[in-house]
Amino acid sequence: MFDSKKIRFVLVNTTHPGNIGASARAIKNMGFNDLWLVNPLKYPHSEATARSSGAEDLLENARVVSSLQEAVSDCNLICGTSSRSRSLTIPLITPRECAEKTVEHLGKGSTVAIIFGQERMGLTNDELSMCHYHLTIPCNLNFPSLNLAAAVQIIAYELNLGISAFDLPIKPSEPLVNAEDMEKFYGHLESMLINIQFLNPSNPRQMMRKLKRLFNRASLEKNEMNILRGILSTIDKVTKV
Amino acid sequence: MFDSKKIRFVLVNTTHPGNIGASARAIKNMGFNDLWLVNPLKYPHSEATARSSGAEDLLENARVVSSLQEAVSDCNLICGTSSRSRSLTIPLITPRECAEKTVEHLGKGSTVAIIFGQERMGLTNDELSMCHYHLTIPCNLNFPSLNLAAAVQIIAYELNLGISAFDLPIKPSEPLVNAEDMEKFYGHLESMLINIQFLNPSNPRQMMRKLKRLFNRASLEKNEMNILRGILSTIDKVTKV
Repeated sequence: MFDSKKIRFVLVNTTHPGNIGASARAIKNMGFNDLWLVNPLKYPHSEATARSSGAEDLLENARVVSSLQEAVSDCNLICGTSSRSRSLTIPLITPRECAEKTVEHLGKGSTVAIIFGQERMGLTNDELSMCHYHLTIPCNLNFPSLNLAAAVQIIAYELNLGISAFDLPIKPSEPLVNAEDMEKFYGHLESMLINIQFLNPSNPRQMMRKLKRLFNRASLEKNEMNILRGILSTIDKVTKV
Repeated sequence: MFDSKKIRFVLVNTTHPGNIGASARAIKNMGFNDLWLVNPLKYPHSEATARSSGAEDLLENARVVSSLQEAVSDCNLICGTSSRSRSLTIPLITPRECAEKTVEHLGKGSTVAIIFGQERMGLTNDELSMCHYHLTIPCNLNFPSLNLAAAVQIIAYELNLGISAFDLPIKPSEPLVNAEDMEKFYGHLESMLINIQFLNPSNPRQMMRKLKRLFNRASLEKNEMNILRGILSTIDKVTKV
């Protein structure tokens, strides 16, 4: 498990307290907790708390500082998020590349900061010049301005994927049938289809091939096979009366 | 360039109009534009417009319908987003896997729907049983409930990356059935199973859910559907004699 204090989310000059709350929620959703605020316009604020929806702990523990320099002085990798292209060219990276670099850096004991500018204006050139990388989210170039918390969400999502193996809540799956079970099923299906005169036994092959292709594609579980065999047996019984 | 009407974002029973606006912005940021709303609690609404921040065109063109079935009846691939793990296991996929499947399906001319449930409760089991895949965003399992628009943002981000990364293979393949065809098939299957007394109509739901899960997984082609409907009609005829 990585030290969650090694990944820092820094919001600079945020105007809307609701965006701070929504960002806190997004950060916590992705398993992170270190939130720094550089000169927030209104903070603390009820709207930040409301939008955090259960991430109040991140808001309470957020570090409020008065300069970006103070927020990143002990960081080893600093990525500045911005959609605007700049005359000042520092290397551009995507969120996925940022996650790769972050993982590399965590392995070296680095502290990583991801910086997000003010809602309307983004990061200034001065702020961006403090960054190692210019982090840009691929998007619709005709409508590129993401909501602040939405940008935080995407980058936190990529960082979480990069850092953790996917912790999907996968339940142990149902056992699947084997080829022998499938052959018995197809035999039973074919005899039923002949019995109800859907299938002409003098030329059955193309029809059965199509049905096999369909059911093979579904990779049947044992319990599903039991249902299908039960249906076939019931049809047999009903049509023999 | 893909046809943007082939990717549909469907919000079901959304409670907060602000979330509709924020979702519209997220969708447009990622280059998509087809928004469907199933029974939104308050819509249109000033808060939706405010939070859309320039995506008012998506709100104006949003299709408002009264059932999920109506929203997806012509769709060929339906992915339901949910963080809750379910007793009914339809195949789980991540947003990235969803993007891969979407790219595959676009190559076949399919229409793809991504479904998002009500904010607090998510999708019901009935709604989820209409889906081919259960789409889950990897996250902090101790704090897994993302804001609705944040979930939309992540999935739209992955879809945009997936679609831009691949040259869509325009290989003609068999056309797939849509959700309306599937509903008709399930109705026919259910009435046949009741008719042969395999299914007890006083408690049909779990059985039909299991069968839907099986056939949804197979992504039926139109010619396969014709075969299955032909088998059902023949059984009807034989058992009515």
